[in-house]
Amino acid sequence: MNFTIQNVLILDGPGYQTVDVQVAVSDEGASSIVAIAPNLEPMGRLIDGRHKLLLPGFVNAHTHSSEMWQRGIIPPYPLELWIAELYEFTPLKPHQIYLSALGTAVETLLSGGTTVVDHLVIIPGLEKESVKAAIQGYREAGIRAFVGPLIQDEALGASLPTGGTSVDLAPHYHGTPELLQLMEELVQDYHRPEEGIHIMTAPTGPQLCSDALFEGCADLSDRYQLCRHTHLLETRAQNMLAHEKYGCSVVKHLQDVGFLGDRTSLAHCVWLEDEDIQHLVDTRSTVVHNPLSNLRLGSGIAPVLKYRQAGVNVTFGCDGSASNDSQDLLEAIKIGTILHNPTDLDYRHWITPREAIAMASLGGATGLALQDQIGSLEVGKQADFVLYDLTSLSLLPRTDPAGLLILGRPTQAVDSVWVNGRQVVADGQPTQVNVKTLRQDLFDHSEWATNRTSTMASEFEIRYRAVMGL
Amino acid sequence: MNFTIQNVLILDGPGYQTVDVQVAVSDEGASSIVAIAPNLEPMGRLIDGRHKLLLPGFVNAHTHSSEMWQRGIIPPYPLELWIAELYEFTPLKPHQIYLSALGTAVETLLSGGTTVVDHLVIIPGLEKESVKAAIQGYREAGIRAFVGPLIQDEALGASLPTGGTSVDLAPHYHGTPELLQLMEELVQDYHRPEEGIHIMTAPTGPQLCSDALFEGCADLSDRYQLCRHTHLLETRAQNMLAHEKYGCSVVKHLQDVGFLGDRTSLAHCVWLEDEDIQHLVDTRSTVVHNPLSNLRLGSGIAPVLKYRQAGVNVTFGCDGSASNDSQDLLEAIKIGTILHNPTDLDYRHWITPREAIAMASLGGATGLALQDQIGSLEVGKQADFVLYDLTSLSLLPRTDPAGLLILGRPTQAVDSVWVNGRQVVADGQPTQVNVKTLRQDLFDHSEWATNRTSTMASEFEIRYRAVMGL
Repeated sequence: MNFTIQNVLILDGPGYQTVDVQVAVSDEGASSIVAIAPNLEPMGRLIDGRHKLLLPGFVNAHTHSSEMWQRGIIPPYPLELWIAELYEFTPLKPHQIYLSALGTAVETLLSGGTTVVDHLVIIPGLEKESVKAAIQGYREAGIRAFVGPLIQDEALGASLPTGGTSVDLAPHYHGTPELLQLMEELVQDYHRPEEGIHIMTAPTGPQLCSDALFEGCADLSDRYQLCRHTHLLETRAQNMLAHEKYGCSVVKHLQDVGFLGDRTSLAHCVWLEDEDIQHLVDTRSTVVHNPLSNLRLGSGIAPVLKYRQAGVNVTFGCDGSASNDSQDLLEAIKIGTILHNPTDLDYRHWITPREAIAMASLGGATGLALQDQIGSLEVGKQADFVLYDLTSLSLLPRTDPAGLLILGRPTQAVDSVWVNGRQVVADGQPTQVNVKTLRQDLFDHSEWATNRTSTMASEFEIRYRAVMGL
Repeated sequence: MNFTIQNVLILDGPGYQTVDVQVAVSDEGASSIVAIAPNLEPMGRLIDGRHKLLLPGFVNAHTHSSEMWQRGIIPPYPLELWIAELYEFTPLKPHQIYLSALGTAVETLLSGGTTVVDHLVIIPGLEKESVKAAIQGYREAGIRAFVGPLIQDEALGASLPTGGTSVDLAPHYHGTPELLQLMEELVQDYHRPEEGIHIMTAPTGPQLCSDALFEGCADLSDRYQLCRHTHLLETRAQNMLAHEKYGCSVVKHLQDVGFLGDRTSLAHCVWLEDEDIQHLVDTRSTVVHNPLSNLRLGSGIAPVLKYRQAGVNVTFGCDGSASNDSQDLLEAIKIGTILHNPTDLDYRHWITPREAIAMASLGGATGLALQDQIGSLEVGKQADFVLYDLTSLSLLPRTDPAGLLILGRPTQAVDSVWVNGRQVVADGQPTQVNVKTLRQDLFDHSEWATNRTSTMASEFEIRYRAVMGL
């Protein structure tokens, strides 16, 4: 249905403008912003935009939805021990994956996101069912989704540096050709860009994947025009391992195997050297900054100001709910915006609220090669946008709306959300998801847990402490 | 009115227990927890605690309420330029101070706080009216409040290091004896601990106050048993200035002038040297950590893990809303809990969710010398506590409630709040404040502002960049 948002505040250069925004939606569900100007002739359904701010939708550019089942429970651990506990207790039913995808979608939508990138943990033996379940959740919620099954062809123990000692590891239960075959079938079955559902190739990271897997994924991505996604140099231990494994810059190595590019987004990038940055620039790769996860796991502070100064596209992710432990995208953007200030004495390099908005919207779209279709309020683009209620107590008194939204802690501030012209949040509530039922389902499928002990984390801990000199 | 919360979850050692909590409230409004145990004989009003977590109230241990009028609007500046803009546009009507105190109280209550420490910016010429207005707001909201008027006897320009050059500054418009006289009158007029309203002595900080002012405040605090509060070594520039001004450790200097002690709380403490920590230990002073403000202003990362290892009491504050830009105490606690992980490779030193809860509750009470009266759920203590709804979507699926609350991003999770046995939040809404009216008042007294320019910040900027080598 066509619609017009009337008298709504939008960003305009360094200031604001009050305009009407008109959207045409075809019978097939394709949307297009047809006009943005003050006092337009009314068209279609009329929506009152007074005292509201309209922004392009943000991208939750890196998460792992099913981690939601373990949020709040993993102790303060670095990634290498945290992940052992995570894997030990990972959900094993596709229905759980469906529910946590729904929960991830709802929390993302209610915090300004219209697109989610799910680096999806898949259930061994139920790989296709896992992907199917997540996609079902995203379709139901009405969010734009990129699903990248987390694949690896090395056993988890391979992700720890050896410190020069020899370590015996069983082979991973999935072989490389088998994984690539699975990926191709998933693309055929589920990759539907025109419906807002994308499959992406997403090997876990250099710490767990062979060159053959990276190359195979790059090839698949070229053949089907898929986005590529991986973890890169998240932790100090991964940095040590990369030196052991490649003997050269892992960033350069990924470039050499053909994985980098303008459809590639790289989660974390905490431990890159200055000289690595040029490889990102040269390949037009995108960095996904996950500030809360990087703090929670003690991974470090990514050199985001340096990336920006070099011209690298940077956007934000929540990361999975077990390392954050939330999917509030506005929180990730706030912390990602201010975290770097202490790292650079010259405040002229600090990220402004308006720059943060651009990073989260157009930056996110660019990392998914959708910058011509979404990511900004422009005539001809699709209608992925969010209407914020500026009379929320958390956004008062009235000052600078962009500053309030990004530097404040907006609560109940998202009034409405449209994804490709379809309204999926109205009056602060998802229109496609019954939140009360979702809460009850999540409640019923879980139980209070305390003093859970992870055998796997304890095993990894001995090696971890030795190799990290603890 | 006496009441019993039935079947509620509380922390118990490393786990949880389901109990009833009984509170007796006298006709004079004094409360006392009289029993905590499973299956108690019902007493007074009965409250259903099922699927809820009861925690002691947290302390928002450092804020400046009237900064709320400028939240979201000050550009990314370090403190020294930020404060110039803040002062240039500071509110000048006591009614504004009343409204922002009310707003600060509501946001604190709705994020787990039962006590606020307001380092209150006072209006020149309307000092008493300013304090009266803030206290009116806190009394109305029903929050426990410590109001420390921000006093200084040096002009704002004195807060910049000179770099060895001579700088002419006008004397401050308030003389030292005049300020001390004002403070004593405020104590007589407004200090009512038994009613939950405390005046504290709170010189701005070494960068703007003479020794005479610190000594006078310490003396006043001894005579009236007041708490003491000040800013300490928040920024790199303050650290430079302290070296210029004292030629020795400013921490030692504050100890020598008698300002430190077990009723003293010190906001920020970002730039202390290792040897300063012992002065905090020796005097049993409390550090108030304001992580969001420290990031927003680029002040640095306070060495909180070192403080804790040395045995210093550390608690959390939001800081004023213009440097955060929120009063969500749970957000400050989350970031204050995880921010330090990257600074210490050994995760065994990292703050756990339960430790964070203790820091925010008993730690806050200890900094205000109220550790025997509030800060924990114990028979005999006053009833300052908060009931969290564990069925909030943001706290599901069910895992470890403490972890979900501290490491997650709780939204609409505060169900009920009691301060000294009086229920001030019920069903997620303040009972004493009409939030709709408050929002309208804040809206009506403000306007959207963009491209505001601060003359004072521009003037300070020249000196700041020169002395900081920018």
